[in-house]
Amino acid sequence: MTRPDQIEGYTFGRATHSPVTLEELDLLERTMQWSDEDERYLKLAREVLANQAEAMVDAWRGVIASQPHLARYSAFPDGRSNAAYSAASKPRFIRWVTDVFTRPRDQAWLDYQQEIGLRHTREKKNRTDQAESAEHIPYRYFLAFVPVILLTTREFLGRKGHSAEDVERMHAAWTKVVLLHMTLWSRPYMGAGDW
Amino acid sequence: MTRPDQIEGYTFGRATHSPVTLEELDLLERTMQWSDEDERYLKLAREVLANQAEAMVDAWRGVIASQPHLARYSAFPDGRSNAAYSAASKPRFIRWVTDVFTRPRDQAWLDYQQEIGLRHTREKKNRTDQAESAEHIPYRYFLAFVPVILLTTREFLGRKGHSAEDVERMHAAWTKVVLLHMTLWSRPYMGAGDW
Repeated sequence: MTRPDQIEGYTFGRATHSPVTLEELDLLERTMQWSDEDERYLKLAREVLANQAEAMVDAWRGVIASQPHLARYSAFPDGRSNAAYSAASKPRFIRWVTDVFTRPRDQAWLDYQQEIGLRHTREKKNRTDQAESAEHIPYRYFLAFVPVILLTTREFLGRKGHSAEDVERMHAAWTKVVLLHMTLWSRPYMGAGDW
Repeated sequence: MTRPDQIEGYTFGRATHSPVTLEELDLLERTMQWSDEDERYLKLAREVLANQAEAMVDAWRGVIASQPHLARYSAFPDGRSNAAYSAASKPRFIRWVTDVFTRPRDQAWLDYQQEIGLRHTREKKNRTDQAESAEHIPYRYFLAFVPVILLTTREFLGRKGHSAEDVERMHAAWTKVVLLHMTLWSRPYMGAGDW
């Protein structure tokens, strides 16, 4: 696995202060009934998925690549695939999987979630990699991709011989934590008073 | 179950034309890899959940009621619970569960999803029931509640003796279709160019 400090554009710990507060984050976790059990099963999921993060990202990108209306957001404006852009962003995508399992959800984490959200919108997309590509990922595709993230991961969780109950509980924790990220990533898409 | 034409404020078939097109809907379904198998398992889930819709809504509302930062959106502005408002909206919430399983996803369905989204925002919240309550549900709570909808339903799907595999496949279809609704309900929260 690439070391964090070797990942181009991975500014965890150096991102701009998020407009979302830690108090708001706490209320989001309560909303989804985040529990100590979830925390334990997220730790177990970490063991299960640690060596599968790149395969997960490859699976997700395979779904994206197979659909022109999704592939265009990582392609050149004329539709040709942009291998340099995809290669540059891939280590950060893989690192996200690791971060889900290993980072405490503190201010630095919160700040970087805002940065990730911004990098999907016209405010910051393409800049990190000086990429020439579509300037904004419509929110509807971002959110509608969540089932792919949830359901493919369920398969990866089942590949290491854990009991059905453990797989289900790991998947419950994964479901919550992915939706938690998605909620924070939605912030740059709308006004503070709407979010 | 209350007949649709007896549900106050249930304007399915009479809602304003949605700004979302059927072509955009099709691309959303492709994004989440909606399949014939999902359609079949959604039909099976319909049989399993048909008599449990009210219990599902009660479970969800129980989670909301237990958290002041969520309960306030169905309460009076001063925080007292608003029984009349909750009672008025409940048959529509139950009807939504039935609609998920029974309605074709056509123009009338699309129009009503936009209406449901709007009724969570300051543009239309409270008006259907002439309710006195907070004027807008922040998007972050709306989205962060999705894991509750997904995970409690998994329990309801498992209560009728189906195989673990059938429960899992029904739950996969449910995951997709809930996120599909959520994606459409997000439309009123942001500008057309962002969504």
